[in-house]
Amino acid sequence: MEKYAVIVAGGSGSRMNSKLPKQFIEIGSLPVLMHTISQFFLADSNMNIILVLPENQIDTWYMLCGKFQFSTQKITIVKGGSTRYQSCKNGIMSIPEEEALVAVHDAVRPFVNPKIINEGFQLALEKGAAICAVESKDSVRVIFPDGSNNAIERKTLRLIQTPQIFQLKILKKAYQVEDCDKFTDDASVVEAAGYPVFLYEGSYHNIKITTNDDLALAEVLLASDLDK
Amino acid sequence: MEKYAVIVAGGSGSRMNSKLPKQFIEIGSLPVLMHTISQFFLADSNMNIILVLPENQIDTWYMLCGKFQFSTQKITIVKGGSTRYQSCKNGIMSIPEEEALVAVHDAVRPFVNPKIINEGFQLALEKGAAICAVESKDSVRVIFPDGSNNAIERKTLRLIQTPQIFQLKILKKAYQVEDCDKFTDDASVVEAAGYPVFLYEGSYHNIKITTNDDLALAEVLLASDLDK
Repeated sequence: MEKYAVIVAGGSGSRMNSKLPKQFIEIGSLPVLMHTISQFFLADSNMNIILVLPENQIDTWYMLCGKFQFSTQKITIVKGGSTRYQSCKNGIMSIPEEEALVAVHDAVRPFVNPKIINEGFQLALEKGAAICAVESKDSVRVIFPDGSNNAIERKTLRLIQTPQIFQLKILKKAYQVEDCDKFTDDASVVEAAGYPVFLYEGSYHNIKITTNDDLALAEVLLASDLDK
Repeated sequence: MEKYAVIVAGGSGSRMNSKLPKQFIEIGSLPVLMHTISQFFLADSNMNIILVLPENQIDTWYMLCGKFQFSTQKITIVKGGSTRYQSCKNGIMSIPEEEALVAVHDAVRPFVNPKIINEGFQLALEKGAAICAVESKDSVRVIFPDGSNNAIERKTLRLIQTPQIFQLKILKKAYQVEDCDKFTDDASVVEAAGYPVFLYEGSYHNIKITTNDDLALAEVLLASDLDK
C-alpha cells in the first residue's frame, strides 16, 4: 500500500520574533523542515510527501530548495487553509489513491526518526489509527469545575505528539465533519468520527519547535551524539 | 512568620553517566544547587535554607562552597533518607518553630525565580498549601483500564513543579503518615492527610534537570536574555 506523509507547516514565526517562519529556520545549517522531510525518506525511500504550506511561503520554500540543493522530487506542495484542520484536510484530500496509509506530521518536529515513523505505519496498517505519544515526566493534577484539584496517576496519561498515522479511508471519512474547537489534532477528528485510535511510544526528543528555547534545545539535540 | 526553604537533593547522577550528582554539575560556571539556593535568597534575604543532602555528598558540598566562595551562613545541612519522602520528612522535622511557612523545592530546579517563590509563600499563608504548576503544551489523552483512550481537555490538567509551599503545621501533620507509592510529591502527602492544595502559575523555564538534554537546555536558558 502506498505511504504518504502530510507535513503540515503553519505559523508566521511571530512567537519567536523572527521574520522567518520557524519551519524555515536553520538548525545545524539546514532548515528545520528539511530535517523533518528527510526523516520520512529515511524511513522509506518511496514515501510520498505532501507538504502543506501557507500560500505566501511557497516561493520561500522553492528558494530554500535551490539554496540547499534539496530535491523537490516526490514532494507535492499543497496550499494551507486558515486553520490547522483546514490545512490537514487540504493535504489529505489531495491524495489520489482510494487506499493508502497517511502520516500527518508537524513540520516543526524534525527529531522524529525512522523507527517512530515505521512503527506507526505498521500499527496503522493493523489498527487503523496510530498516535505517537509519551508519558509525562511531571506529576499531574486534574482541575475540577469547582476549582479544586486532585492528583492523577501520570501512568494513565499520555502527552500527544505527531506523527499520527491512519488508513486513508478512515481519515477521509473523518474529515467530512465540520471543524470545531476541540479538534486539537487529527486523532481528535478521527475519534469524533467514531473510530478508536491507538497510542504507541514516541520520544522525548521528538519536540515541537515553537519557542526560542525549543530552537536552542534543537541545536543541542542535533549536535549531541545521543540516540535520537 | 519565618520562611524556610527545604531544598531536596537526591540522585547519584547515574542517569547522566556522570560521577558528579547533577545538583553539583556546573552550569554557567556555578553548580546547579548554588543557582537554586540563590533564587531563594533573592526572594527574601532572611530566608532559612535547609539543604537535605545524601550523607556521602556533604563533604563535596562543603568543598564546593569553599571553591566557589559560597556562603554557608543561613544554610542548615540535614542528612537525606532512602526515599524522597524520607528526605523531605527529615528536612521538615528539623524546623524548630511551631509556626512557619515552608517551601519544599527540588535542588535541580535552578530556574525558579523570586516571583514564583514569593507568590507561593503568599498563597500558602492564605490557603495553607500552594503548588507551582503549568499547563501542558501538548494534547493529552487518558488511558482507561481496558487499554482504550480518550482525548482529555488539556486546560483541565496541570503539570506539577516545585516549589510546593505549606504552613508548617499542616506539613508536619501530613508527614505523620507512612510513606506510600502514590506519594510522588509533597502535595500528594498533604492531600492524603485531608488538606486541600491550591495550584498557582509556574514557568516553563522552571525545568528539573534530570538528563543530559536538560543540562544542555539549562546552559541555553542561563545564557539567554529571556525573561525568567
